[in-house]
Amino acid sequence: MDSTLEFSPHTREYYLQKAEQNLPTLHHESVIPSPQQLTLRGGEEAVLDLGTHHVGHLSFHLSHADAYLDAPVRLCLRFCEVERELTDDYRSYHGTLCASWLQEEIVTLDAPCSYTLARRYAARYVRITVLAASQAVLLRDIRFDSISSADSSALPVHAFPDEELAAIDRVAVRTLHGCMQRVFEDGPKRDRRLWIGDLRLEALTNYYTFQNLPLVRRCLYLFAAAEPDENGFPPAYVYESPDFVSGSWYLWDYALLYVCALCDYCDHTDDAETLRELFPSAKRIIDGIQALTDENGLLRARSGCTFIDWCPGLKKSTALMGVYLYTLEKWERLCAQLHLDEEAKCATRALKKGRDAALAHLYDAERGAFINERDERQYSIHATAWMILGGVLNGEKAKKALSRALASDTAIKPNTPYMSHYVTQALLRLDMHAEAIDYLRHVWGQMLRAGGDTFPEIFRADDAEFSPYRDRMINSMCHAWSCTPAYLIRKYGKDVLTNPL
Amino acid sequence: MDSTLEFSPHTREYYLQKAEQNLPTLHHESVIPSPQQLTLRGGEEAVLDLGTHHVGHLSFHLSHADAYLDAPVRLCLRFCEVERELTDDYRSYHGTLCASWLQEEIVTLDAPCSYTLARRYAARYVRITVLAASQAVLLRDIRFDSISSADSSALPVHAFPDEELAAIDRVAVRTLHGCMQRVFEDGPKRDRRLWIGDLRLEALTNYYTFQNLPLVRRCLYLFAAAEPDENGFPPAYVYESPDFVSGSWYLWDYALLYVCALCDYCDHTDDAETLRELFPSAKRIIDGIQALTDENGLLRARSGCTFIDWCPGLKKSTALMGVYLYTLEKWERLCAQLHLDEEAKCATRALKKGRDAALAHLYDAERGAFINERDERQYSIHATAWMILGGVLNGEKAKKALSRALASDTAIKPNTPYMSHYVTQALLRLDMHAEAIDYLRHVWGQMLRAGGDTFPEIFRADDAEFSPYRDRMINSMCHAWSCTPAYLIRKYGKDVLTNPL
Repeated sequence: MDSTLEFSPHTREYYLQKAEQNLPTLHHESVIPSPQQLTLRGGEEAVLDLGTHHVGHLSFHLSHADAYLDAPVRLCLRFCEVERELTDDYRSYHGTLCASWLQEEIVTLDAPCSYTLARRYAARYVRITVLAASQAVLLRDIRFDSISSADSSALPVHAFPDEELAAIDRVAVRTLHGCMQRVFEDGPKRDRRLWIGDLRLEALTNYYTFQNLPLVRRCLYLFAAAEPDENGFPPAYVYESPDFVSGSWYLWDYALLYVCALCDYCDHTDDAETLRELFPSAKRIIDGIQALTDENGLLRARSGCTFIDWCPGLKKSTALMGVYLYTLEKWERLCAQLHLDEEAKCATRALKKGRDAALAHLYDAERGAFINERDERQYSIHATAWMILGGVLNGEKAKKALSRALASDTAIKPNTPYMSHYVTQALLRLDMHAEAIDYLRHVWGQMLRAGGDTFPEIFRADDAEFSPYRDRMINSMCHAWSCTPAYLIRKYGKDVLTNPL
Repeated sequence: MDSTLEFSPHTREYYLQKAEQNLPTLHHESVIPSPQQLTLRGGEEAVLDLGTHHVGHLSFHLSHADAYLDAPVRLCLRFCEVERELTDDYRSYHGTLCASWLQEEIVTLDAPCSYTLARRYAARYVRITVLAASQAVLLRDIRFDSISSADSSALPVHAFPDEELAAIDRVAVRTLHGCMQRVFEDGPKRDRRLWIGDLRLEALTNYYTFQNLPLVRRCLYLFAAAEPDENGFPPAYVYESPDFVSGSWYLWDYALLYVCALCDYCDHTDDAETLRELFPSAKRIIDGIQALTDENGLLRARSGCTFIDWCPGLKKSTALMGVYLYTLEKWERLCAQLHLDEEAKCATRALKKGRDAALAHLYDAERGAFINERDERQYSIHATAWMILGGVLNGEKAKKALSRALASDTAIKPNTPYMSHYVTQALLRLDMHAEAIDYLRHVWGQMLRAGGDTFPEIFRADDAEFSPYRDRMINSMCHAWSCTPAYLIRKYGKDVLTNPL
């Protein structure tokens, strides 16, 4: 077969219908906190500990402790992913994201009553403050209905090389668990949206952990149903609840990673139907990105059109070119698998052309370093890692380039575990297994030692207050794109074991 | 028939069952406020006007106005019975009652959604403040589900003598309407409890307005089911929702008014069954109060055991004695109607003995005035009015005593419309119709001119900040015991008409 004729796009309604058919089962766990019940007077507060990070709904029975309550009870319920949020002063919040994401509710209840909070929250701890009560109140039957589309019983037993990696894996798995809901969410505290960048990493990790394939399919179909931009790219995110709404922000690197996510899915399933149905969406992206290359075959990142990392001032064209080539390599393989020979040949030619162009224009052979933006010569780990993932440089030259960037004081460093994941992948691509596992230990080990049951969206060991949103209180402390150690360790664990540090 | 044998008490469960059988129908009215929809940005606020005072649940549909909302929306909803509450600073509240009665909710909603506030509130105005929203929000389909067990279509058309009385009646009827729920509540903003003192006045007014007899029966049965104290008195209040709970405060005058309420019910229905079933509860109160009279046949109010009025420093024994005699007269008539001759004779004897004792010990013949507490000689309108309602003094002497007290600068004056009702009744008992209507116009006319769609629990023309709870913000602005002008005007309207001022 050498034709894409049978790969014709379907309607938006069809894709949405497929997404609904793949709505995952939500697993519920009834978590009993410590303490199991509370007696509090007006003005008093207490903290419930759920034991680990959970996502779901708090419920309790409220009544009088001694004398019957002759007035309603006003409670403030604060949901904290980590301990320090317990004492944050939310009134001082001044971040760029909406304050409504701060996980706090004030409820007025007529006791005695059983109450379940309607909104879902993400928490290890729940702080309960009695804002107003005419008498002491008793909270009993306190439960947290913990919800996830991750089936914990599906998690394969894995022999970890050592306790640190086992601990990193455990936290990474918990992170993914919290983000697996009706879609792969970016973070259960905040945004709660399906982003392509997060989806791709969550799906990868999911193949090695909870193995929920319907959830991956659902997310892939949702983007197929979304409104493409003038380049044929899907939006960087979609909303799926209460109704499907196509996002309004388009990112070139995220569009490319959608193609990668489809290729990954293909690598991990024999699901020819999904591949056939989503192939047109991927091809549209490949066609679109190629149309954006310049006369040299290079891409230039436009302002606001590329993500790469939360990193102020980062120049992104070189990294974006790397994402393109990385994607193209996967695409070439996919087309070959499907026996779409013409498509595969095109990809091969484009890949060679792109790599040659990148090497010619984005590599400073003298310094043995990739430069970020041809005209600004910015030096970053981001550009280096993505050029290597794009196959622009291989072998010893590549190892030297990446090692030098990682060791450099002046190279711009990743701010997010999302980017750190791709750095680790670049090391693994170069068979630098020891360095990869060392880097992973460094990045995620720091987060591990900082505490928390899940990995956050952002971590800077030198700045505990860092936030891309100008206020640390709004940071998501359980964030999808930080979950990949579970993938990296479980997939490459054997290599690590045979090459212990 | 001359035996109380057939009037045997039933079990608590039986009385509760009868109370449930008489659960009234709740009438719903869907109120569309002005404006009908709102577009607001973060930090902005708007006021909804419901047209008049309503009790019920607010609902609306929340969505984005322009761009899709990428974050939840946090709203503050304040329910105001009167306009001035819109600008009150609730953070400064320092009253003695629980702050949870301040009618304000903070809700966090994931738009788009339809939302109905679970708690019932009492309001003419609703102030909506957008505490946090990432984009402009649109509130539409705003409705207030107004609830009352009062059936407006049952309200008799009445020809009022003039516009002022018509206006007072209108506000009084609206007040009763708001308080008629599953029971006769004291106030729909605050307490929301069934108190005997309020019940008696609401039931009286109800006979001349909405004529909801099941509601009266329900309330009478609920007190029969309550835990009596060592005197055989019912508690001053009960809770009925979510479960029946007997109150823990016992007031002698309220216990007596339960007997009055039963006698009133008897005057307005032919319901022999209810009377037979509740007679033992009333007789227990009469027996109990008589056991509390001293060697002179007088009652002495103990601290915290008598209400009479919200009036700091008021001595209450004389007024309490008046309530007893007032009740005894009704009881005597009831027993006679039931042909319980022995009971009736006992009542007649007790009434004569009590009136004689009161005249001998509580009346200063020289000054032509009743004194409050034999040993303290406090002068109050309260004592005077209740002595007259108790029939201790009649004719010209009584008229002079009451007129003098009302005209006196030194006599302690009523603080509540509850007490003002009994002053008006005392004037009517003396056939002082012109003075009664004048007094009514004075008391309720002042409140009318102060604004509001309903009459408040407390009103002092000289002190707009007065509150028995030390903070005016907690005052109930729609309070049951203020509704009686609708009874007084409708019942005595003809006399007023034939004796215009």
